[in-house]
Amino acid sequence: MDTPYTFDLNNPDFIPDRYDNHIRRTLTAMRGQYLDTAAFEAMLAADDQLLYEVYEFHRPHEPGELLHGISIVHPGKVGDEYFMTKGHFHTVLDTSEVYYCLKGEGYMVMETPEGDWAAAELRPGKALYVLPRWAHRSVNTGAGDLVTLFVYPGNAGHDYGTIEQQGFRKLVVERDGRPEIVDNPRWGSKQ
Amino acid sequence: MDTPYTFDLNNPDFIPDRYDNHIRRTLTAMRGQYLDTAAFEAMLAADDQLLYEVYEFHRPHEPGELLHGISIVHPGKVGDEYFMTKGHFHTVLDTSEVYYCLKGEGYMVMETPEGDWAAAELRPGKALYVLPRWAHRSVNTGAGDLVTLFVYPGNAGHDYGTIEQQGFRKLVVERDGRPEIVDNPRWGSKQ
Repeated sequence: MDTPYTFDLNNPDFIPDRYDNHIRRTLTAMRGQYLDTAAFEAMLAADDQLLYEVYEFHRPHEPGELLHGISIVHPGKVGDEYFMTKGHFHTVLDTSEVYYCLKGEGYMVMETPEGDWAAAELRPGKALYVLPRWAHRSVNTGAGDLVTLFVYPGNAGHDYGTIEQQGFRKLVVERDGRPEIVDNPRWGSKQ
Repeated sequence: MDTPYTFDLNNPDFIPDRYDNHIRRTLTAMRGQYLDTAAFEAMLAADDQLLYEVYEFHRPHEPGELLHGISIVHPGKVGDEYFMTKGHFHTVLDTSEVYYCLKGEGYMVMETPEGDWAAAELRPGKALYVLPRWAHRSVNTGAGDLVTLFVYPGNAGHDYGTIEQQGFRKLVVERDGRPEIVDNPRWGSKQ
């Protein structure tokens, strides 16, 4: 029977006690996304490190459904650029997403096709509404994992290709030991 | 400009540090919903007590949007039946809802038009997926507030009338100092 279900997000890790799918993204998945390509290639040659993980639940990809799960971005940097997710637009551009930060610290970096951008701080207890049309990427600027609960419409879909091609307008880098949001000098060119 | 936004849910109360609308439901809003009508009328005559509150954000009521906010059910009983929300079906029946429990203990009592029912335990760290077609009501069985974060599709709408007319199939009552889920003897009749 198709019944409502619960899952537990327990301290200290917030890994759900049940899930349908576990995605693991390593450095390989991020080729071309980090500004410092030499640092990227050196790291990859040493170890195809795990950057982030997603635990998700299977539901139909239909408009009235809500897809949901847990995102865990591990701490680290490629050069001076913090570990981050690939980031994406929704294929159905006019769909939004809700995030709730459970652990860690970082930013959600966002932008629209029209050229607006935003960076929202994430830390435990902070909820975020990513409006329809805004591409979004989680960036971990902390010493531990950045863990968020996410919810988005079942029909949203993921367009990773646009970001893979053009990157995000803004990068989050470490300057004098602190995160700083800077322009991406390569934005729009083939990454 | 229409930009992504964050809000903070801070311990110990989890009241958001910003919101667009604050709903307060007192006993008056629940006339006919509690089984023990004599206890209800006596309580109401003494004080039209605050039962629950909702903090919400204004977003367009459109399919790609997600409506979201915080629900706080206060502790207490009418007779031996715990304080609860009105409960509702979504007007667009094939829309779902995600809850994340931040504080307290209780149940989400749910049912479908076809006669299925379920009661999911809520306590901090528990996330719940209310499937499309399932009416839902939060019930606080604890000594303190029951606080949840909720997210549902922008076009879902609220059908309160069906539950006002027929009630829920199940009630949550105190028996020997503990919550118990029992049949609603008046289900389907005019409440």
